[in-house]
Amino acid sequence: MKTAEKEQLIQKVENGSVTTPKGFFAGGIHAGLRYSKKDVGILFSTKPASVAAVYTQNHFQAAPLKVTQESISKSQKLQAIVVNSAIANACTGEKGLQDAYEMRKLTAERLNIDENLVAVASTGVIGEFLQMDKIKKGIQELQYSSFDEGAKEFQEAILTTDTIIKGSCYEVIVEGKKVTIGGAAKGSGMIHPNMATMLGFITTDANVPTPLLQQALKEITDVTFNQITVDGDTSTNDMVIVMANGEAEHSPLTENHPEWHTFKEGLKLVCEDLAKQIARDGEGATKLVEVTVKGANSKQDANIIAKKIVGSSLVKTAIYGLDVNWGRIVAAIGYSDAKVNPDETEIYIGPYLTFKNGLPQPFNEEDATEYLKNEHVEITVLLSEGNEEGKAWGCDLTYDYVKINASYRT
Amino acid sequence: MKTAEKEQLIQKVENGSVTTPKGFFAGGIHAGLRYSKKDVGILFSTKPASVAAVYTQNHFQAAPLKVTQESISKSQKLQAIVVNSAIANACTGEKGLQDAYEMRKLTAERLNIDENLVAVASTGVIGEFLQMDKIKKGIQELQYSSFDEGAKEFQEAILTTDTIIKGSCYEVIVEGKKVTIGGAAKGSGMIHPNMATMLGFITTDANVPTPLLQQALKEITDVTFNQITVDGDTSTNDMVIVMANGEAEHSPLTENHPEWHTFKEGLKLVCEDLAKQIARDGEGATKLVEVTVKGANSKQDANIIAKKIVGSSLVKTAIYGLDVNWGRIVAAIGYSDAKVNPDETEIYIGPYLTFKNGLPQPFNEEDATEYLKNEHVEITVLLSEGNEEGKAWGCDLTYDYVKINASYRT
Repeated sequence: MKTAEKEQLIQKVENGSVTTPKGFFAGGIHAGLRYSKKDVGILFSTKPASVAAVYTQNHFQAAPLKVTQESISKSQKLQAIVVNSAIANACTGEKGLQDAYEMRKLTAERLNIDENLVAVASTGVIGEFLQMDKIKKGIQELQYSSFDEGAKEFQEAILTTDTIIKGSCYEVIVEGKKVTIGGAAKGSGMIHPNMATMLGFITTDANVPTPLLQQALKEITDVTFNQITVDGDTSTNDMVIVMANGEAEHSPLTENHPEWHTFKEGLKLVCEDLAKQIARDGEGATKLVEVTVKGANSKQDANIIAKKIVGSSLVKTAIYGLDVNWGRIVAAIGYSDAKVNPDETEIYIGPYLTFKNGLPQPFNEEDATEYLKNEHVEITVLLSEGNEEGKAWGCDLTYDYVKINASYRT
Repeated sequence: MKTAEKEQLIQKVENGSVTTPKGFFAGGIHAGLRYSKKDVGILFSTKPASVAAVYTQNHFQAAPLKVTQESISKSQKLQAIVVNSAIANACTGEKGLQDAYEMRKLTAERLNIDENLVAVASTGVIGEFLQMDKIKKGIQELQYSSFDEGAKEFQEAILTTDTIIKGSCYEVIVEGKKVTIGGAAKGSGMIHPNMATMLGFITTDANVPTPLLQQALKEITDVTFNQITVDGDTSTNDMVIVMANGEAEHSPLTENHPEWHTFKEGLKLVCEDLAKQIARDGEGATKLVEVTVKGANSKQDANIIAKKIVGSSLVKTAIYGLDVNWGRIVAAIGYSDAKVNPDETEIYIGPYLTFKNGLPQPFNEEDATEYLKNEHVEITVLLSEGNEEGKAWGCDLTYDYVKINASYRT
């Protein structure tokens, strides 16, 4: 729950986007990698920005991630991100790496900036090579703007099996000045920890040094993007990048700055918002499932249990089938490795208490089934191990998930 | 590969079952817990047998597991197993425990043996109470025999969403005498480690002391039952029990007995056979998927990687869709936490090399697609980390999996 004070300082910006913070431009174009949809996007800041990034933990990191890490490590700043969809440029060896470098170079030339200020991201099929002639033409012809239109094009260009574009925007007040944080993301399948099983791009006009921004992003990722799961598969390609260009013109944030936590909370809200949009748009999903675990021994335990529940295929299919099958939630808690006492565990589906003292609890089955028809389903687990809390987000498992993934590549 | 010598000593018994070893009887009956199918089964030995058992690692262990553990710990022997399907008797508190004790007592009375020689197993829906009047009548009226008919009835009575009965039988020669090992199993959903995410009952007329039998079962379970996965969910109820009644009349086996490893190999073959049958009969499955990982740093790493691949929803749906999508296999290897060098990893789908030296390999897509139409699909991964090997078994993920689990309980 937000406090009244926090509410004054942090506000959601309806229809805000990655171009809402001052000094950011974006655009997207149909370069021809996909049949008809946009497939190349660029997001950039008018001046070099502080940067933070987190990457997939998959051992098989795709070529663009290597290039992006090199850029950031060399310049400690970032000014532009170029993204293509359709092809992941993963498992493509030396040629794939050269293609990613070429994408970086073409973008730097287009924007007339240093190559090391450009990040590269790709998403799509593994093991195919980029059609560089199309990408080159796309980067050269792409139009961009600081209006919502540019952000919308960019959001479209980064999608794969996603059904909707994903964005979020919050405003916070720092030293009496308005600081805006905008985000765009893609992600629908291969969604699971560890970091950042999706693409997320966040812009802000805050003035934050790179190391502090990195620390904040890492911390926030663990409780937002890393707590969503669609299918338990971790991609080779995914990353989240934050660019902070300082255009809001407050003094640099430090950990001791009175509004540091306000800014961090705003950044967290943008990340959480994007994470939930990704979970809700999980391949074939009809619902967002939100699991809250309270009374855990540690935050880690609470997060593990929440994620196990939201990741259970049996829980996911039961929710799709409007079946108030709390027994499958019990099973998921039980195999989570976290510390739990079965006889002191309570399970709520929405407002309905289903399990307590090791026993089924009486509840109105019709009402509970009706509750599961909501597009946002909440499951709450109360443990008796301590006072820590955690959350995770996912979606139901449907026929369409199978359909999409049995035929995605062909 | 079996050696010629091994082949002479170990033979599969076609149509063999849990009643093929000397001195075992079985039967099953429709007691009325399910609409029309058999739902109560009994398996027993004419004399008390050495026993080994492994249980689910789920924190929420069902009542029958507690009763079975008590029996085995008190008597170190076992003579009978009573099983019901339809209701798991899990999350049923003190009443559930009393019901499990009552099942044990009724079975002991029916067979006129000590209660502590009886194991109890249940499988089905979590959180409902057993209808004890029906179970009582079932146990009292059930007929049993040492012929295959009895075994078949027992195999039927333990099923839930399974589509076929599961059994296996091997013969080994010990001291020139024929020793038979038979098995029956159930399992279709909630199939994942750790131990023994299914019910398995194995009988043998071998003469093996309880501690040695336990040690062998534990070891074998880790590379058979614990290496299958259908949906990643670990049940609250599952166990594997072996009864060895010594009726083959050889001298007691010890670790130094020249045929100990022959017997152990026979036991392993029965377990592996049952495990593969369970994987193949995964809910909604159309195929058995077998993954072999070679060249790993350790057996554990090989097993982890094999299991990650076979458990990946994206790999499972691709196989269902006849899509030679080796990129998803790469992703699964990459997020497995095991030691791998991406550039020295080879991936075969059937006989087709798809990935090597960090690059896609040319293969005939049509032939490979044709290969995926087989009912038994093999994936092989060659690492360059060491000489250890591991295997795992699973199935494809289909529309029917969703259908079965979206409507199982209602």
